[in-house]
Amino acid sequence: MSQPTELFDPAARWAAPDPEPIVGDDLRVLLRQAFAIEEDGAGASPAAVVLEVAPSRLSLVALQALGAVVGPEHVVVEDAARAAHANGMSYLDLVRRSAAPPTVPDAIVLPAAHEEVGAILRACSEHGVAVVPFGGGTSVVGGVAPTRGSFDAVVALDLQRLDALLEVDDVSWTATLQAGVTGPRAEELLAEHGFTLGHVPQSFERATIGGYAATRSSGQLSTGWGRFDALVERVRVATPAGDLDLGRAPGTAAGPDLRQLVLGSEGAFGVITSVTVRVRPLPEVRRHEGWRVADLATGVGILRTLAQRGPKPDLARLSDEVETAMGVYSAHPPGGGTDEAGGCLLLVGWEGAAADVAYRAEAATAILRAAGATPLGEEAAESWRHGRFRAPRLRDELLGAGMLIETLETATTWRDLEALHARVGETLRTALDGASPIVACHVSHLYAAGASLYFTVLARRDGDDPVAQWSAAKTAVMETLTGAGATLTHHHAIGADHAPWLAAEIGELGVDVLRAVKARLDPAGVLNPGKLLPAD
Amino acid sequence: MSQPTELFDPAARWAAPDPEPIVGDDLRVLLRQAFAIEEDGAGASPAAVVLEVAPSRLSLVALQALGAVVGPEHVVVEDAARAAHANGMSYLDLVRRSAAPPTVPDAIVLPAAHEEVGAILRACSEHGVAVVPFGGGTSVVGGVAPTRGSFDAVVALDLQRLDALLEVDDVSWTATLQAGVTGPRAEELLAEHGFTLGHVPQSFERATIGGYAATRSSGQLSTGWGRFDALVERVRVATPAGDLDLGRAPGTAAGPDLRQLVLGSEGAFGVITSVTVRVRPLPEVRRHEGWRVADLATGVGILRTLAQRGPKPDLARLSDEVETAMGVYSAHPPGGGTDEAGGCLLLVGWEGAAADVAYRAEAATAILRAAGATPLGEEAAESWRHGRFRAPRLRDELLGAGMLIETLETATTWRDLEALHARVGETLRTALDGASPIVACHVSHLYAAGASLYFTVLARRDGDDPVAQWSAAKTAVMETLTGAGATLTHHHAIGADHAPWLAAEIGELGVDVLRAVKARLDPAGVLNPGKLLPAD
Repeated sequence: MSQPTELFDPAARWAAPDPEPIVGDDLRVLLRQAFAIEEDGAGASPAAVVLEVAPSRLSLVALQALGAVVGPEHVVVEDAARAAHANGMSYLDLVRRSAAPPTVPDAIVLPAAHEEVGAILRACSEHGVAVVPFGGGTSVVGGVAPTRGSFDAVVALDLQRLDALLEVDDVSWTATLQAGVTGPRAEELLAEHGFTLGHVPQSFERATIGGYAATRSSGQLSTGWGRFDALVERVRVATPAGDLDLGRAPGTAAGPDLRQLVLGSEGAFGVITSVTVRVRPLPEVRRHEGWRVADLATGVGILRTLAQRGPKPDLARLSDEVETAMGVYSAHPPGGGTDEAGGCLLLVGWEGAAADVAYRAEAATAILRAAGATPLGEEAAESWRHGRFRAPRLRDELLGAGMLIETLETATTWRDLEALHARVGETLRTALDGASPIVACHVSHLYAAGASLYFTVLARRDGDDPVAQWSAAKTAVMETLTGAGATLTHHHAIGADHAPWLAAEIGELGVDVLRAVKARLDPAGVLNPGKLLPAD
Repeated sequence: MSQPTELFDPAARWAAPDPEPIVGDDLRVLLRQAFAIEEDGAGASPAAVVLEVAPSRLSLVALQALGAVVGPEHVVVEDAARAAHANGMSYLDLVRRSAAPPTVPDAIVLPAAHEEVGAILRACSEHGVAVVPFGGGTSVVGGVAPTRGSFDAVVALDLQRLDALLEVDDVSWTATLQAGVTGPRAEELLAEHGFTLGHVPQSFERATIGGYAATRSSGQLSTGWGRFDALVERVRVATPAGDLDLGRAPGTAAGPDLRQLVLGSEGAFGVITSVTVRVRPLPEVRRHEGWRVADLATGVGILRTLAQRGPKPDLARLSDEVETAMGVYSAHPPGGGTDEAGGCLLLVGWEGAAADVAYRAEAATAILRAAGATPLGEEAAESWRHGRFRAPRLRDELLGAGMLIETLETATTWRDLEALHARVGETLRTALDGASPIVACHVSHLYAAGASLYFTVLARRDGDDPVAQWSAAKTAVMETLTGAGATLTHHHAIGADHAPWLAAEIGELGVDVLRAVKARLDPAGVLNPGKLLPAD
């Protein structure tokens, strides 16, 4: 194995850890009291548990075939590497790791070129080996689970060696990045040319360009700058049946936009090897502000006005009363909220040329003031900005304190947004009744027709069967979402966890269309079994 | 036949004709001199020729099956109706009509509900009858040609009775329109609620909501307001295999966006029966202006700045030197250009709230002045606006004068735009050498990464074989576009005419993916044979 082992260390998946724990000893005691968590038996962080893994099932002939493509040193079968590719980052991923030895891939394959990816897919099709494309490994929906499906073995196809910026077109403001480039690395590479991608999901530190594309990622600036799928000009894909190279012009009517079949395909149709994305010059100015509004309805009204009448901010995030009171964006969460006055915290921000930022911020200020909002200054937003990537680490610490903590998200129209907020909250509180549930939410990702809702749920973890506890709550939420006509997921994707409900979103016939596409591109069915498409 | 016959009169496809010919007798003489057109043998307008049509081949059993779905009075077999559904609006459509009796559909079927459309498709699948979905009949790429494919008969499925506004959501700013609603009718219906769709393609007067969606239409305000495909929130489709109802939220990561398989599917996968689109309040203010710039490169630089740095105008249209000199937007085309000074005409416009229009117009004015542009005032733009729907009628008159006149369009990146402009112009002038060709072009539909090029070509029509003359030129352009990596079409779609080059755009594997989708949704293959997908 030629790779530094830290590349496979789950603890290294997030960037430089905080020097100090986010949750100190005092807060830990408080949490245990608040959620009635017993000291014993719930203390260990599931994320930290290390268990033995089963021997590799990869056949020698398959190992040799893959080694012939990428070189034997790039087919890795060591236990540590396999354990590090065993799961994504969902609450259940972490909880399950503590309950039993994880299912791990039988090998990690590390191609260095588009052509090698295609050859790997053909070899796996020939030898009956399932393939799980693996970028940053940050899926929270089981998207990288090493599922064998009907095959004897499964490999993780880790794209980290596809890490180059292939081209910058500084006239058309586009850049072609290989799939394995991470969020921070993309920014480093583009900054050398004076550009930024400006796509900042929660998983930014580890997630990759290919993952953004395969899961239809959405970032913190997506209100102004667009979802990742809206930034893609061109995409190159290796499939078992051959290559796709889609996207010839910024606008076209040359049949259906097949790029949109690839975006969101979650490795079930092929492996994205490079993406040409829109970029923009590094912003001259960044301005983020906090405001307090009287209640959720007032805040939603403000966001709707900004989204529909404009000018749109780049960042918009409205915490409901619970999230505001928890002070999750304050420097020392969880704390006392924005201040004693209650209400809801609204973050709004602009980036770009100075004149443009000034115009948009002034227009928004007028809308905010007209709706009775109180300015909290830039500090309130900078506090959020400073801590915005700490959520995964905070979650790990809360898991260690014996808690259930998970997030889920959806989107709907402005007309239905507040009713859906109430229904999902009620569903979660009912499902977790008895475990001191707290459900917090923010509205973000504004569109002309609606917005997303992002829920965080905290409760006392059921030490006996935490999987059943959360699975029941998650199922109840899925039924609520589909019953309300909302989407299953705004930016977490389908993976394995949402696949049973895909037909409720796109219909049985829609699922069959996806199956027809998969059958054409992946006739052997080796690509990411059980993800996106529900099992037959 | 219960429909008023004028619904089937080709001459009535465009709104109220001008009281006077656009091309007067004097200009007609001048054109003949300029293009060396002989008086005799080239005078009749192909558009006006009426020829006999062949008897219907529809079997009695199929006629009865269709009549059982929609009522016998809504299955029309009269010659006039069939002739009116024989073709679209391309130059070759019109020229071919004068050369031989047109191929006409064997019947027109007029459903009044989504469920009837599905039942028609099942009946046609059962009885082996090809189906051509028919909206406004304005295709310029052979999209409504009544091709039988491998079947004995073909019917036109005319959607004009699906003409309702089903719902307006005035909170989320969306409206659900049935597929047969025309552009003007959509505006009438929405205006009653204070909204506008704001989608204005050249074919606006006759084109329909379903046609906009099926062909990925782009309108004159698409720079600011978006292509039609970008306005679609939800789409309902009847297919032989069942219904699709796609689009649950304004943003989602629930797998690939299957709406994008329907948009641009050109009736080959199913029939779009209703579309939920974004709408906006009727604009408070409209401001359109003309400017003169020194040359094409200067104008392209201005457009690129507007598109990338913003704020974007809603309308942007830059005529090259030839189009400017022809004065196609003046009140009396073709005339003497914007004035004696030459250069290029640039039209730019904004619509919306007064403050927003003022801000964007002022910012654009600064960019225009910095680039040395000369203001021509609102009159120059209003002249274009006044005559913007006359092009089809002008074309009919020029056809009557013995001319070849056709348009074609593409799109590419800003980096490649000027080189592509030169190459396509050179290709057309070479292909039509000896026929006094004139090639004019405008840049429009601005995107951050590029723009469209819209060419108009004028020449002396080859009276002996006009089809071969234009086919050779068109083929040469297609080879130039694919060789340059540009798209085959920015908003005219694929139809029959572009189908041979689809694989050059999306690859053979991309075409195969579309075939796999079609096989799942239309197993009998009755839907629009020979359109979108090249014949096997």
